[in-house]
Amino acid sequence: MSFVPLPAVGGDPASAPAGTTPGSFANAPKLAPGPAGRLTFSSPDAPGMPAPSDRTAWDFLPDGWATGTDATPDSARTFEQADGSPRWVAVPDGFEPVTQLESARLGIVTPQMTRVAEREPHLSAEQVRDEVAAGRMVIPANTRHLEYNLDPMAIGRASLTKINANMGASPVSSGTDEEVEKLQWAEKWGADTVMDLSTGGDLDACREAIIRASHVPIGTVPIYSMIIGKKLEDLNIEIILDTLRHQAEQGVDYMTVHAGVRRAHIDLVKDRLIGIVSRGGSLLAKWMLVHQAENPMYEHWEAICDVLHDRDVTFSIGDGLRPGGLADATDAAQLAELYTLGELTERAWRKGVQVMIEGPGHVPFDQIEYNAKIQRRLCHGAPFYVLGPLVTDIFPGYDHITSCIGATSMAYHGASMLCYVTPKEHLGLPKKDDVKQGCVAYKIAAHAADVALGIPGTRDRDDDLTRARAALNWEKHFELSFDPDLARAYHDEDLDVDTDFCAMCGHDWCSVRISKEIQEFASGKADGFAREKVLKSPALNAEQRAILEARGHLSPDQIHKLAGKTKTAVGATEGHKAACHSDLADDDRAKDVQQKKVPANVVELTV
Amino acid sequence: MSFVPLPAVGGDPASAPAGTTPGSFANAPKLAPGPAGRLTFSSPDAPGMPAPSDRTAWDFLPDGWATGTDATPDSARTFEQADGSPRWVAVPDGFEPVTQLESARLGIVTPQMTRVAEREPHLSAEQVRDEVAAGRMVIPANTRHLEYNLDPMAIGRASLTKINANMGASPVSSGTDEEVEKLQWAEKWGADTVMDLSTGGDLDACREAIIRASHVPIGTVPIYSMIIGKKLEDLNIEIILDTLRHQAEQGVDYMTVHAGVRRAHIDLVKDRLIGIVSRGGSLLAKWMLVHQAENPMYEHWEAICDVLHDRDVTFSIGDGLRPGGLADATDAAQLAELYTLGELTERAWRKGVQVMIEGPGHVPFDQIEYNAKIQRRLCHGAPFYVLGPLVTDIFPGYDHITSCIGATSMAYHGASMLCYVTPKEHLGLPKKDDVKQGCVAYKIAAHAADVALGIPGTRDRDDDLTRARAALNWEKHFELSFDPDLARAYHDEDLDVDTDFCAMCGHDWCSVRISKEIQEFASGKADGFAREKVLKSPALNAEQRAILEARGHLSPDQIHKLAGKTKTAVGATEGHKAACHSDLADDDRAKDVQQKKVPANVVELTV
Repeated sequence: MSFVPLPAVGGDPASAPAGTTPGSFANAPKLAPGPAGRLTFSSPDAPGMPAPSDRTAWDFLPDGWATGTDATPDSARTFEQADGSPRWVAVPDGFEPVTQLESARLGIVTPQMTRVAEREPHLSAEQVRDEVAAGRMVIPANTRHLEYNLDPMAIGRASLTKINANMGASPVSSGTDEEVEKLQWAEKWGADTVMDLSTGGDLDACREAIIRASHVPIGTVPIYSMIIGKKLEDLNIEIILDTLRHQAEQGVDYMTVHAGVRRAHIDLVKDRLIGIVSRGGSLLAKWMLVHQAENPMYEHWEAICDVLHDRDVTFSIGDGLRPGGLADATDAAQLAELYTLGELTERAWRKGVQVMIEGPGHVPFDQIEYNAKIQRRLCHGAPFYVLGPLVTDIFPGYDHITSCIGATSMAYHGASMLCYVTPKEHLGLPKKDDVKQGCVAYKIAAHAADVALGIPGTRDRDDDLTRARAALNWEKHFELSFDPDLARAYHDEDLDVDTDFCAMCGHDWCSVRISKEIQEFASGKADGFAREKVLKSPALNAEQRAILEARGHLSPDQIHKLAGKTKTAVGATEGHKAACHSDLADDDRAKDVQQKKVPANVVELTV
Repeated sequence: MSFVPLPAVGGDPASAPAGTTPGSFANAPKLAPGPAGRLTFSSPDAPGMPAPSDRTAWDFLPDGWATGTDATPDSARTFEQADGSPRWVAVPDGFEPVTQLESARLGIVTPQMTRVAEREPHLSAEQVRDEVAAGRMVIPANTRHLEYNLDPMAIGRASLTKINANMGASPVSSGTDEEVEKLQWAEKWGADTVMDLSTGGDLDACREAIIRASHVPIGTVPIYSMIIGKKLEDLNIEIILDTLRHQAEQGVDYMTVHAGVRRAHIDLVKDRLIGIVSRGGSLLAKWMLVHQAENPMYEHWEAICDVLHDRDVTFSIGDGLRPGGLADATDAAQLAELYTLGELTERAWRKGVQVMIEGPGHVPFDQIEYNAKIQRRLCHGAPFYVLGPLVTDIFPGYDHITSCIGATSMAYHGASMLCYVTPKEHLGLPKKDDVKQGCVAYKIAAHAADVALGIPGTRDRDDDLTRARAALNWEKHFELSFDPDLARAYHDEDLDVDTDFCAMCGHDWCSVRISKEIQEFASGKADGFAREKVLKSPALNAEQRAILEARGHLSPDQIHKLAGKTKTAVGATEGHKAACHSDLADDDRAKDVQQKKVPANVVELTV
């Protein structure tokens, strides 16, 4: 951001009221204040927001551990933290670290931390280690999955915002091969993790194949496997632990466990408009009502921690009482459960297990910051993994949009990973294209938040695309786009790429052209962004043709023809500067060109 | 919102850190503090934001006017404001009001104000009048257009957030009939105003037809008509005034005039990545460079005001220097122009003309609130009309999404009307379906903001839809949806509507079913939301069939077949309570049903 004082043009600058210079905003904190070298990007707190917790995972060490930043006791390990400060750690004799959290606490930089720093150049491996040690970052990397193709990644406030795509076989859906294909599709469209939520088919074989094929961490909700083919009432801690152990051994990287839904919370749910909408939450609530007993996952949390610990499975502690509509958002049930999630976080950290916390799916826009900041407070900065949230309920069929609005704001204010929502949410199971639409909407949300948070380097591609746009360099414009085939196809629907203007305003009205031609302006003149000399456009590729065919405005013949147009055809031969309305408003040729090339049945757009 | 203190379940409530109770947020101001009866909905200011202006349109009265709230001088009119306080106004002898602003200043409630209050039941006609008088609300209603079919509406912070759709003929596009059809299409999808941005065809005939056919206010950018068929250099104040007068006489309700682009600003643009992207702005900048002279629209602003005044045309003062990419957002050029827009607002108010201010199209998410609040400061609360803004540049083809994220935040923080962006932005002219996609995305943004701002009644439909969802009342669910045909079609793609569950989780896993069946819960039991007894679903209508055909997953035959399914077919005959997994996990029949009804090639979604 480059804010400058208001220049003295027009009116009397002395009469500008106090507080109107942008400088007053530039002074607002963008990075949370903290020691040098600590990278936690966050929004400034609006009035009334709960302050961050003053505790971290360092405050919840296992029994027999000690740490400090003062004089080192005998027999303690000492290491230098990324911010240059020293830390000592004393552990029980013979202790060997298993989890990333345990390694980080010992000052060890694991190969996975090194890889994360490679993938996110604004972080050093030591910063990754320190964030993991503080509990503010997780590296979901089952030690079994690391033997296959997992490319380690991190989730936390110091790293880029991540997105998750849900998939999984239904009782009759596709077999294992198709599930692997869907995994690859989700990876193609930018999913940073994938959750296998299968409830049908050969769950075990499918999970195994997905884990072996995936480059991204795989998450599951093991309660589904605990219940299938059984009566809910028969669920007990042995079944729970057996199922968790089995999936941990298979290589699952993170698991949703709904241990925060407690018996006393059920009373808080009863007046909700839409009760409990989490499948795990509703099943456990029913179990507690039937048995008149506490949630066994809460009661036996330490035993569950031990199972996850042994393969370094990361907790994704489920929000079984998340709201199912705006009316139920941020209510007593949700907040009571969040309070319990904070307690479970502390208990998991004492067992050396990595933790992230799941968050709500429906939240009015004004309540989003509060949701993020109360989580930061109660869960001591453990990464927040949020479904959406939707910011209105009345647009079924468009909930990838209603929710990516909420997701952007949630990521700006505190979420570290966003679970996508597809256009089919609330209506049915997403098809392949719905999965793509969900992924794209969430890549938008994650990227917009990262830019807003000022994570170094995140805006570079946006700026390059703006430079390409200023230079009217269409090929580069498409190349820098997230979905180049779509951008190219949409563009070519109206006009081929080899023009000095675009099909929106057309030749005569191209403000970008005018800016580019004003000698005093830098616009359109950035090094490396000038257009190559006129070339014949390549033919549309198969993907681009498919996009145009699906839109249905042009015949296949027209599609082919448009792709073959050359700059010559639109009135600017090589060496001839194409005409611009502002220079040559009476040049009939310019108008002819526009008339010939812009197809009928279009609606004019920009102001 | 119903925030309650954290209940004492789990852990020691006394150990909860200070500031964690939701009450601390509930105390934050939601409505801007102001006298009783003044309805200005706004977000709380983040740290560092400029405070609101302490002036309103009352501080910028025409020469010869006076007003006060103290003892009434002789010969002044007195009226009671909506908040119960008195006000007097003294005007020159023989003055007759023409504009809504002038009437409001005299305490007159016009028929248009009454109509606005009818359409927005949270406002009284007197509140509308007072907001108009303060300059915080406009009613764009050309006195000529009122003779046709215009249904008056208002734009301002006290009213619901509005959206605008752009359309208009290009040099070869459709004739007048097609433009009128597009207008009706935009109205169908919720456009509150429409801008006719024609740059080709018979501009006059097209504008005339649109004005006569429209129920919504029509805006234009008259500089297009001033330039077509002429040399830019020849533009002068006579051409400007003639064009404005002609369009005012035709019945245009609001006009974009780029009077804020001043000669001294051009220097501030030169290092931008993408110069000037407003067509009007770039044309005027070029004119000023050619003539080495000040912007004639700025110089002759009072003469322009007189022309607009006579038909009560509302200004939409253009932001000719709006940024064309994130890199150029909130820069010196944009802010210098905004400062001038504030000056022009004051000058227009002195001439009795209604004013709104246009705002930027590309803004990083963290800068949105600042943009809204510096506008509120410099333009004394004149309604802010914003294009998008896009919050990232790298998703061409998806800019209806990138921009509706920004639009939601901008509306929450201060915008009163949102100009839509379609998926074709930056790539070409939108087709009919692009117009729909743009409208829907912006209805989402506007509605989400209104809910967040707490405008009375805005969440009612969301809550009703949640009740319908809780009751598994699919017909009512669709009926309450913004796009019922789409919702119905997406749902029926997987499962017919006459079921006690949905096609996402299927029968066995339906958390909503479980919640509904828990006797202690209110969920799914709201009066008037129970499902009717089992009926055969009606066949899909033509629109719904078309949606499914376009998606391409089902054959026409399957589409027809799915629409004909009955509840009997899915295992719950009349009088028989359909089985639920939590009761009957071993009921093979329930599983069979699910297996039969959920088609292959789907991806599982919810956690």
